[in-house]
Amino acid sequence: MAPIKIALVGIGKIVRDQHLPAIAKNNDYQLIAAASRHGTVDGIDNFKSIEAMLEAVPAIEAVSLCMPPQYRYEAARAALDAGKHVFLEKPPGATLSEVADLEALAASKGLSLFASWHSRYAPAVEAARSFLAATTIEDVKIIWKEDVRHWHPNQEWIWAAGGLGIFDPGINALSIVTHILPRPLFVTSAILEFPENRDAPIAANITFTDGLKLPVSAEFDWRQTGKQSWDIVARTAAGEMVLSEGGAKLAVDGKIVHQEPEQEYPMLYRRFAEIVKAGTSDVDLAPLRHVADAFMLGKRKFVDAFHD
Amino acid sequence: MAPIKIALVGIGKIVRDQHLPAIAKNNDYQLIAAASRHGTVDGIDNFKSIEAMLEAVPAIEAVSLCMPPQYRYEAARAALDAGKHVFLEKPPGATLSEVADLEALAASKGLSLFASWHSRYAPAVEAARSFLAATTIEDVKIIWKEDVRHWHPNQEWIWAAGGLGIFDPGINALSIVTHILPRPLFVTSAILEFPENRDAPIAANITFTDGLKLPVSAEFDWRQTGKQSWDIVARTAAGEMVLSEGGAKLAVDGKIVHQEPEQEYPMLYRRFAEIVKAGTSDVDLAPLRHVADAFMLGKRKFVDAFHD
Repeated sequence: MAPIKIALVGIGKIVRDQHLPAIAKNNDYQLIAAASRHGTVDGIDNFKSIEAMLEAVPAIEAVSLCMPPQYRYEAARAALDAGKHVFLEKPPGATLSEVADLEALAASKGLSLFASWHSRYAPAVEAARSFLAATTIEDVKIIWKEDVRHWHPNQEWIWAAGGLGIFDPGINALSIVTHILPRPLFVTSAILEFPENRDAPIAANITFTDGLKLPVSAEFDWRQTGKQSWDIVARTAAGEMVLSEGGAKLAVDGKIVHQEPEQEYPMLYRRFAEIVKAGTSDVDLAPLRHVADAFMLGKRKFVDAFHD
Repeated sequence: MAPIKIALVGIGKIVRDQHLPAIAKNNDYQLIAAASRHGTVDGIDNFKSIEAMLEAVPAIEAVSLCMPPQYRYEAARAALDAGKHVFLEKPPGATLSEVADLEALAASKGLSLFASWHSRYAPAVEAARSFLAATTIEDVKIIWKEDVRHWHPNQEWIWAAGGLGIFDPGINALSIVTHILPRPLFVTSAILEFPENRDAPIAANITFTDGLKLPVSAEFDWRQTGKQSWDIVARTAAGEMVLSEGGAKLAVDGKIVHQEPEQEYPMLYRRFAEIVKAGTSDVDLAPLRHVADAFMLGKRKFVDAFHD
């Protein structure tokens, strides 16, 4: 099969760090164009907007959309209307409804839509899922604390309404938890901490449960300096499971049972090629739905102003 | 067919005003029990909790859940686990995820779940839908302004996190708009006004669009005194359509084309009997999804404290 002629939209840090290397190493793809207001990619045609690119390069078969979520719908719609398969960086959109609309549009046109969740492809996630499926879980604690100044320096969009704030990394944890737990979760209470000068939260405490009353809690915080925490801890009948380093490492009762180098984006692009070939879509909205639920149900608290 | 033996849970104002008269006039139902922390219904067995009622009265075939949304999931789950069909007052829950879970549970047990939206059954709604389907719409304005002190005196739950605040009436407008417009909507921006002493908003301004960029705006406000406004105004190629009085009256270019007395709850109970007989569910989450999206995407603004 000829490689999928792909284009990238929204050339920023995540594209340089992850998308470009993953595409370069995968024979399923040929990168032929890029569109971005500010960034460019060497060696291919670059455009200022997706509309200009789609018009100038009809050979494009698929696009990866990597701009902030607030701008994703229009670009995705333009691409689907032009008959292209669409890969959405996480989160798949600024609202649940717009993604539902894209899903329907892709289906009506026989195109593939991929709501990608990179953390679900962290190396130890499947091992954690298997471990939990074979035991009884007593409770689950999610601790996702990082330093926003280090990971998102001067990224104004994450602090704007719709940028999701701490849920931008937190949704990675949710994409893992919703995949490894045996039953669907739902939020029962939440406290969202907004810096008094920002429109998105810097921290959140959430409690979830499921149909069998499993206690699940999440602590999300963007003010962590020093060691960063991306851990999911489950007390179970088979011991304490710790899925750490964002899903890269699995330990049970302190003993490491799974650890290998991460290759999340290569796996994402493998999955996207798979659904394009199969003529299907892959759009699980559960992680974004939990975020929306936490905003709807959550208590707002105001904390110190945040300055980059 | 024998009447459906039904029980009511959460005996408050809406039950006395609407549910009891609607059930009394419908031969498809026989009301046999009620459960409520404070209220009782004359002439039938009353219980303090749904669990006590389900245990004491196994003959119950269906329950209507009319307590605040924050308490609805547990009661619905208890009823479905006990093999009863479930009617959910609006909104169907405090989160989208919990309703999705109930939907799956009902399906797995072959029971009917009804997410009721009473305003969709207002008398002129179907006429508005037909009118809009036959023309080109230029823009839509939703104006839903009422006096919270009049309609919800001292109802603390609506001001608590998860009580939805102004979206408690606003979701009625959304349940109509999502039914009468030709394409799915999605929120593009929102401003939510929170009284500084409350956890739920007292007003909201929202802009929506759809796949063809239809401009739709909503003004929700709970501080309206004097004349109350429950209007949906659409400028169209066939004239200006005004659906007013919460869906009771339809006018085009100032001329009334449809007006009749409302009978929303009788229609809801007719619909519930229909799905129970057909062995299906009716759970459209679009209105609640828009509320969740508005909370997730919306800018928060603080306004004067509200006291009942």
